[in-house]
Formats: sequence, structure tokens, C-alpha cells
Amino acid sequence: MAVYTEVTDEELNSFIGNYDVGRLLSFKGIAEGVENSNFLLHTDKASYILTLYEKRVNPDDLPYFLNLLQHLARKGLSCPTPVPSRDGKLLGTLAGRPAALVTFLEGMWVKRPRVDHCSELGKAMAELHLDGMDYEGYRKNALDVTGWRPLFEQCGARTDSVHAGLGAEISRELDYLEANWPADLPKGVIHADLFPDNVFFLGDELSGLIDFYFACNDALAYDIAICLNAWCFEHDGSFNVTKARALLKGYASVRPLETDEYEALPILCRGAALRFLLTRLYDWLSVPQGALVTPKDPLEYLKKLRFHQTVGNAQAYGLER
Amino acid sequence: MAVYTEVTDEELNSFIGNYDVGRLLSFKGIAEGVENSNFLLHTDKASYILTLYEKRVNPDDLPYFLNLLQHLARKGLSCPTPVPSRDGKLLGTLAGRPAALVTFLEGMWVKRPRVDHCSELGKAMAELHLDGMDYEGYRKNALDVTGWRPLFEQCGARTDSVHAGLGAEISRELDYLEANWPADLPKGVIHADLFPDNVFFLGDELSGLIDFYFACNDALAYDIAICLNAWCFEHDGSFNVTKARALLKGYASVRPLETDEYEALPILCRGAALRFLLTRLYDWLSVPQGALVTPKDPLEYLKKLRFHQTVGNAQAYGLER
Repeated sequence: MAVYTEVTDEELNSFIGNYDVGRLLSFKGIAEGVENSNFLLHTDKASYILTLYEKRVNPDDLPYFLNLLQHLARKGLSCPTPVPSRDGKLLGTLAGRPAALVTFLEGMWVKRPRVDHCSELGKAMAELHLDGMDYEGYRKNALDVTGWRPLFEQCGARTDSVHAGLGAEISRELDYLEANWPADLPKGVIHADLFPDNVFFLGDELSGLIDFYFACNDALAYDIAICLNAWCFEHDGSFNVTKARALLKGYASVRPLETDEYEALPILCRGAALRFLLTRLYDWLSVPQGALVTPKDPLEYLKKLRFHQTVGNAQAYGLER
Repeated sequence: MAVYTEVTDEELNSFIGNYDVGRLLSFKGIAEGVENSNFLLHTDKASYILTLYEKRVNPDDLPYFLNLLQHLARKGLSCPTPVPSRDGKLLGTLAGRPAALVTFLEGMWVKRPRVDHCSELGKAMAELHLDGMDYEGYRKNALDVTGWRPLFEQCGARTDSVHAGLGAEISRELDYLEANWPADLPKGVIHADLFPDNVFFLGDELSGLIDFYFACNDALAYDIAICLNAWCFEHDGSFNVTKARALLKGYASVRPLETDEYEALPILCRGAALRFLLTRLYDWLSVPQGALVTPKDPLEYLKKLRFHQTVGNAQAYGLER
């Protein structure tokens, strides 16, 4: 849950006055986005989301994210579209923080995705990858294979306090991934955080993608691997190959996978599992005592990692080539 | 900030299906209401607020609150209007909790009310009091003069840890208020919590009143006293008599004060100040160590109480009779 920055009446009115969005009717802080403060606005024209960027987002990255959203929206992808101010800027300042106004996207995320949701997700992700092909911005993936070991080293000896033997297990996996990580896969803009809460549906139809604040340039198939981890495991830890097949078939119906991408899926899934294992481990060890926010369980991703380690080849994910 | 109850997709769809509100388009937890979980819903018809009542609200009181809102809305007062389910009920159940759907009220609360806001507030409060006259429900004010001493006793010896001598000061004030509290003032439905965050404006016009979960039957002028405390002190602790005059004149333009109400204002203001001093003191002493929520400062209301103790008669509040 976000920590909300206080915005005074004068600051808000002055900020909104910079945009051609009509008369402000309401302004509510919403409980979404752990990283930023988000407010839902109604005006006499439409609904909007106002985001104040808090500490965890690097302000230098904001033009990449906002220009990307504008680029994708122009291509026809359903995503929050930044509203330019009267002087044409996508990024403003409110209450001393970088701030942006984007269109409000109707839809709700699905807490228990079904097979058909996975298929829709696959299609939308492939459209995102195609639409991003000619985006001119570039942002390195700060959490790619080169970023995992430094993160692990920050967790240090306390790693084993979470689970006995975890440090050695991560260390072996890092050795393997660093030695075998595929370098030459097709690259482009990836979302890098397409968890169910960032994908909106209206009924059975996907209505849009949100929260592009991990977007970056990396292997397209790595985005698929993140989603196989996030969408295709059941609550009991079992892997649902029907969901994985639906996701991959949906994706391939829009953008067919190249052979090397397909064959790399098992190692990409291992890498994606380790990436979320490491960030969750780091957050777990960093949460102050007595905090009300419960960090997400790192061991969920240890189980996912172990599953992918048993996978012989990409056919295990359900898609025949 | 509210603790949000998790609502599953199935529960939500089943709940919304009971109401004639159209197709659900979005559903966001909002950061309003410390006592309950509130969600802002868009449907293809309108916007609504869905409230899940958490532990601090007594479920037996909910029919009083919801029927009151319906009564006031029918009289023409601008307030959230409960939406009846298809079988005519205002109160339902969602995620194991009592739940209600109300219309969404456009408007924003004013963080720094000006004189004209106080005048509008006075008028709206008087309208609320007149509209409530023929409401058939009855709810005792749990925090009236008879409820203050038990609350103080729960704070006990730790009171002086907040401020040296505070216990003795409260004790003397309680003796005075219990001996002199006016018994025969005109009574009716009062809001009892009309702080600025419960009063919405659109521009300079008051657009509605919200959050009736302290509403009860008590002296009408006590509601005025609560507002004199909540709206007419500046951040530096000074009393702004121009604001008080505007509030009282606005009120009297809709419902003239009777002589005994007018003359009782100083003691009612002392009582209202003590009531919020005590609840804030209790919350201050009850907050667990390490909690992220900062309780409101009880001493703000000690200063307000001391101001009213110096008031000789009601003319000090700016309204001549």
C-alpha cells in the first residue's frame, strides 16, 4: 500500500490548471502501487490517474516510461496514456515530486486467472512486444542476469536465516545462469512485471496493461518467462501446463517464437524465478520490525525455480513446435 | 488509512449482481475512512462507493446510519445515498462483513477552510438538522457527557505521560461539565463528526456531506460546537472569530438558534473539545509501538478546551443576538 504524499488544495488546482482536462470534480488516493502515490481524479470530461513518483523510482527513468506509454497508446495498445500539459510536457511537478497525469483505464485484475485469461495475456504481451519494436528509448534492465549477483551479495549471510541452505542453492544457480545465459535472443521493449495485478479485464476480455515502471530493453522471451512464473503456477505450487500452453499459443498467434527463443524458455524461466526470489529475499530482509506491510514470500519463487530446474526442454511448457 | 479486506472476484461479482447498477467497469480501494474499507466503483451507469464495515463499527448501528442517509437524500440533502439491492435491502454481506453500496458524491474536502466555506458549512448543517427532525430512528450518542468519564478512566494513570498535569486538568473539567451540562436543549439527529474531511466542495459551493458513522440523537447545538472546534481554529492555535461568525450566521440563516442554545455555546464547545481530547488521548495511548499510523495529537484539543474555558459568554463566538 502506498504512502501518500499530502497535496494542498492550491498545489492541486495549480497543477490541474496546466492540463486541458476540464473541471476537477473529485480526487481520491487509491490503494494501488507500492512504489508511488496514486490518485483517481474525476473531471467533467473523464477519469484520470495522477501519479506522484516517490523515492524508489529513478527520476531519470521517467521520460523513458512516459514516452513509452505515449508510443504504445499511439500504436493502439490499451494502456494508460500520458496527458500532455498545455505546454506539451508529459512530466510535471506536484508537492515537490515528479508527477504525471494519465488516462484512467477501466477494468479489473483477476485474482485467480483461468486458462482463457492466460491466452489473452499472451496475445497482449506479443502486441506490446511488436508495438515496442520502433520505440526509440533505451533503458537497460537493472535486474538482468548481471544484476542478480550484486543483489544476492547485499542479502549476504542473512540469506540462510530465511531458509537453511538457501545461500548455497542460490549461489549454484547463479553460477549456472551466468555461464549459460543466452546472449543473442531477439530483444526489444519488455514490461518485465506483467503480474496479474497489472493486467485488466472486463469480463473475459483483456482491457489493458498498466504499471510500466519496470519496463526496459531486454530479450522478449524473458518477458514470457516472467509470465509463465507469475500466471501458470497454482496456489499449491503445482505448474499448470494447460495455462502455460494457452499463454504461449496466445503469444505465438500474434508473434511466432523463433527457435532459439523457444529452446531458451527453460533457462529464461529459471532466471526469471531467481530474479523474483532475489528481490523478495532482499525485501524480506529489509523490512523494519513492526512494519504493517508483510513482504511477499521469497520461498514461493524458490519452489518455482526448483520446478524449472527439472525441466528437460521447452516442450514441458506445453507448446509443440 | 484503512486496512483493506481482500475481496475475491467471485464474491464481488456475486455481490454486485444483487444491485441494479449496471456492468462493473472498475474497482479501486481508496485511502479514506480509518474505520472501514472503502472502494470506488465505476459501472456503465455511474460511480459508487462500496463500504465494508470493519470491527470498529457496531453492526447493530448500521440500519440507523443507512436509513438516515436514505431519509436525508429523500429530503434533498446532498449525501451518499444507499442503493437498495434488488430485494430492497440497504445492507448486504461481502467477504464475511456487513457491506453497503452508496452513490458516489463528487467534490473535494478543503484542507484549509476559509470564511466562506464556514458559512456554507453552517447552512448545510442547519439543513441536516431540519431534515433529520422527522427521522424515526434513534441512536444514543455513545460519546456524550455520560461517556467521557469511562473513556478517561480507561486512559488511567498513563494520561500524564502525554502531558504533565493532564489527568488533573481533565478531571476538573469533567467535574464542571457533568455538573453544568445543559439537559433541555432542542434535540434531533446530529452528524457529530463534521470535520473538514467530511464536507465536500466544488469550487466555493458545498457539494455534500459524507461519513455519517458517528451520527446520533443529541442536542443540535452540540453539533455546532463540534464544528466551531474543527473549523474555526488556525494552525497556530488561534481562534478565528470571523470564521465562527460566518459559521453561526450561515447556520442561523437556515435554522435560527433558540436563546438557550445560543447561551449554551461556551459549555458545549468545552464539552466538544474534551470529547475529542479524550478520544485522541485514548488512541494515542492505544497505538502499538512501531505502527505506521500516527495518531492525531490530543494536545491540539487541550489548547482548544483552554480557549473555551476563557470565554465569558457566547458573544465571543462572533454572533450578536
